[in-house]
Amino acid sequence: MEITSINQETTQSNFLKAMFENLKVKIKDVAVKTKKIGEDDPRRILHSIKVGFALTLVSLFYYFRPLYDGFGQAGMWAILTVVVVFEFSVGGTISKSLNRGGATLLAGALGVGAEYLANLCGERGEPIVLAILVFILAAVSTFTRFIPKVKRRYDYGVLIFILTFSLVAVSGARISEIMELAHQRLSTILIGGATCILVSLCIYPVWAGLDLHNLIASNILKLSSSLQGFGSEFADVVSPKDGRDKSYLQVHKCVLNSKSTEETLANFAWWEPSHGRFKLNHPWKLYLNVGGIVRQCAYQIEILSGCITNSKIQVVSEFEQKIQPSCVKMSMECGKALKEVSTSMKNMSIPSSSVALHLINSKAAADELKNIMENYSSSPNEADLQRIMPMLVVASILIDIIKFVEKIVVSVNELAEKAGFKQVKLLHRGIVKPVNNDVDDQLVIEIVETKKPIGVGS
Amino acid sequence: MEITSINQETTQSNFLKAMFENLKVKIKDVAVKTKKIGEDDPRRILHSIKVGFALTLVSLFYYFRPLYDGFGQAGMWAILTVVVVFEFSVGGTISKSLNRGGATLLAGALGVGAEYLANLCGERGEPIVLAILVFILAAVSTFTRFIPKVKRRYDYGVLIFILTFSLVAVSGARISEIMELAHQRLSTILIGGATCILVSLCIYPVWAGLDLHNLIASNILKLSSSLQGFGSEFADVVSPKDGRDKSYLQVHKCVLNSKSTEETLANFAWWEPSHGRFKLNHPWKLYLNVGGIVRQCAYQIEILSGCITNSKIQVVSEFEQKIQPSCVKMSMECGKALKEVSTSMKNMSIPSSSVALHLINSKAAADELKNIMENYSSSPNEADLQRIMPMLVVASILIDIIKFVEKIVVSVNELAEKAGFKQVKLLHRGIVKPVNNDVDDQLVIEIVETKKPIGVGS
Repeated sequence: MEITSINQETTQSNFLKAMFENLKVKIKDVAVKTKKIGEDDPRRILHSIKVGFALTLVSLFYYFRPLYDGFGQAGMWAILTVVVVFEFSVGGTISKSLNRGGATLLAGALGVGAEYLANLCGERGEPIVLAILVFILAAVSTFTRFIPKVKRRYDYGVLIFILTFSLVAVSGARISEIMELAHQRLSTILIGGATCILVSLCIYPVWAGLDLHNLIASNILKLSSSLQGFGSEFADVVSPKDGRDKSYLQVHKCVLNSKSTEETLANFAWWEPSHGRFKLNHPWKLYLNVGGIVRQCAYQIEILSGCITNSKIQVVSEFEQKIQPSCVKMSMECGKALKEVSTSMKNMSIPSSSVALHLINSKAAADELKNIMENYSSSPNEADLQRIMPMLVVASILIDIIKFVEKIVVSVNELAEKAGFKQVKLLHRGIVKPVNNDVDDQLVIEIVETKKPIGVGS
Repeated sequence: MEITSINQETTQSNFLKAMFENLKVKIKDVAVKTKKIGEDDPRRILHSIKVGFALTLVSLFYYFRPLYDGFGQAGMWAILTVVVVFEFSVGGTISKSLNRGGATLLAGALGVGAEYLANLCGERGEPIVLAILVFILAAVSTFTRFIPKVKRRYDYGVLIFILTFSLVAVSGARISEIMELAHQRLSTILIGGATCILVSLCIYPVWAGLDLHNLIASNILKLSSSLQGFGSEFADVVSPKDGRDKSYLQVHKCVLNSKSTEETLANFAWWEPSHGRFKLNHPWKLYLNVGGIVRQCAYQIEILSGCITNSKIQVVSEFEQKIQPSCVKMSMECGKALKEVSTSMKNMSIPSSSVALHLINSKAAADELKNIMENYSSSPNEADLQRIMPMLVVASILIDIIKFVEKIVVSVNELAEKAGFKQVKLLHRGIVKPVNNDVDDQLVIEIVETKKPIGVGS
């Protein structure tokens, strides 16, 4: 009997222990995930604090008697504005604030007009006329939200337009001091919007334009890492190292689906004032252009990574041994070219001449490859086509990738020109031949003048 | 003199004419574009009318005296709710309504608690305590919006939570009848939300779930059209027809970037009640799974279309003539398999056995191709590798596409099983050999029982 009760107690305490352990693990899990979100982009924590700050500021405005008496119930519109309008980036906040302000002004005026018109129709006709007007305006405005250009830039404005018009048209019938109300509403929205814009501008501003700029540059860098990863993989294919880091096969994945992010950032960037080296008329559209070509190139890399994951690339036959160096070179040189483009873009400088050099090198490798293939049929004792096919496909895709890299370089150059990127001042340039070098490769060293250290073509 | 004045008049009238013409063209242009938006999806026009209707309904509610006296200023919250909450799809509307209602309830309760707590601290401490509470809650809530799961499902709810908490906490200090206000606010939001849900449910409902289902099915059909287009192109490559419709090269493009649309639809579909043959626990996540594989396949097709656009596929050498029929067959059979999958998905029936047959056919063609390639080196007088390379790459990509088509079939079958798609009752099945057929092809005819006519495997 005693033993049973002890057993029961033990079971119970074990159960409780297990439950606590479980809870502990779950809480820890959530904490780790939350911490990661903050660490991934610390600006998120700052943004949260900024929203809290702006809201507290406006709430206190609204709380204290003098303002309360001045603005009355309308004071809550200031709070509403802050909550709805404060976006992560400066561009987003400005876009929503201006949309809100403009739409309120326009809809308010139209609402007063509608009210006046309805009043003319007598007490019986008034609600009918108002209902018809609200219906027509709401339906037509809702439809305009489907027009891509309106959706991109004024979606929120149209929403506020419908809202304000309905409120003014309907409530106007009750409150005689409609002009007074309009004045109150507009000034509170102004206070809310101005607070948001000031806080988001003055405290560690997050620029959508800068984000877009960095996103495109880092996407180019990702493709570069992928290509250089492929290059090393091909180079080692004769004596593959076990436990090789295969992460380069995944790097390009996020480029495939970055289109909508790029478009959102470009839309917000359009609203932003001049900041840093981004002027008011910065050619944001060209970034989308570059982004599109980068994505095209990422599709090719996706196929390449599929080839490498699925089929074991082997270098056994004489032919394969012949084309392997060209593949390594194409891949590496394209990777280097993209790396330079990305670095110079990050520094807002015009891509240096070594980009062209890498492109020439990769094209030379492609020509070499074509030459080998042209003479293929002449040599006997070759492996069958079926065996060398994966290597051939890889070679062909690499040749295509060179074309895309060239397109990326051209589009970035166009962007650099239109956006007024700086020419990097070349202090010294020399060609170095490394002592211990298996591949016939040269090291171009450029010593340039720049504020931040930028990667030297290696 | 007279002539000059006549000349002047003519110039003036010409100028006015040109201006009017210009204006006319512009108005016509806008009208055509607007008409196209409506024609592309007539549900957009219906949606606009529905929003107008719901808003008019609620406005009249608010306008008439009895309700006005009952709800007071809070009545405008009903209008605000309708404008902000009414989304294109039922799922979107329900998601926003429930988010709004739930968040208002929760934040209201917390706001009253904060108000009570602040009251305890005396008149001096009250604003300080309230400010601290508003700051902490706003900052923490804003941060939770960065958590992917919260962002996906409760983003709008968190926004309304911050808004309501601030309003209640701050305004509560002024208005003693805070409970009365909360009751009013909740009931008006209920009226607004219920109106939106009822209108969007009862008048030609737009189901996000059905849209997602159709989007995935039509994406599969697009890949099918592309592949069949390639097949016809390859088949005619010996005697290419001029002015051939090349639109099939573009069909797959929109599949490449449909990820975000699919995710939005799946999120909204999660909120929708049982409708048609979609039950409450319909496996929406599996659609994203299928969509992902379809997109993978679209990447391959993108490369294939690049091969065809850039390099002229020629069938000159003996070898090319040998592999051409296999390429045609792989492409065609994959296209047919996908077409069947798409059709049966659209009808919500389990893919018929002829899909497997098409897959077997395409694999047989791939084996044939591999066979030809294995014996390549033995035959002399071949063209060089460089010339046949484009054809080889096309063949290799087609072999990869077969794998993806197989994956699509497997994932659609899994979806069909989990979602309880119907088995199509086979009434008769036979194999027909067409009289006039160049390619060694068989026509599988299945006579099945179905409500709507579905495409017969041809």
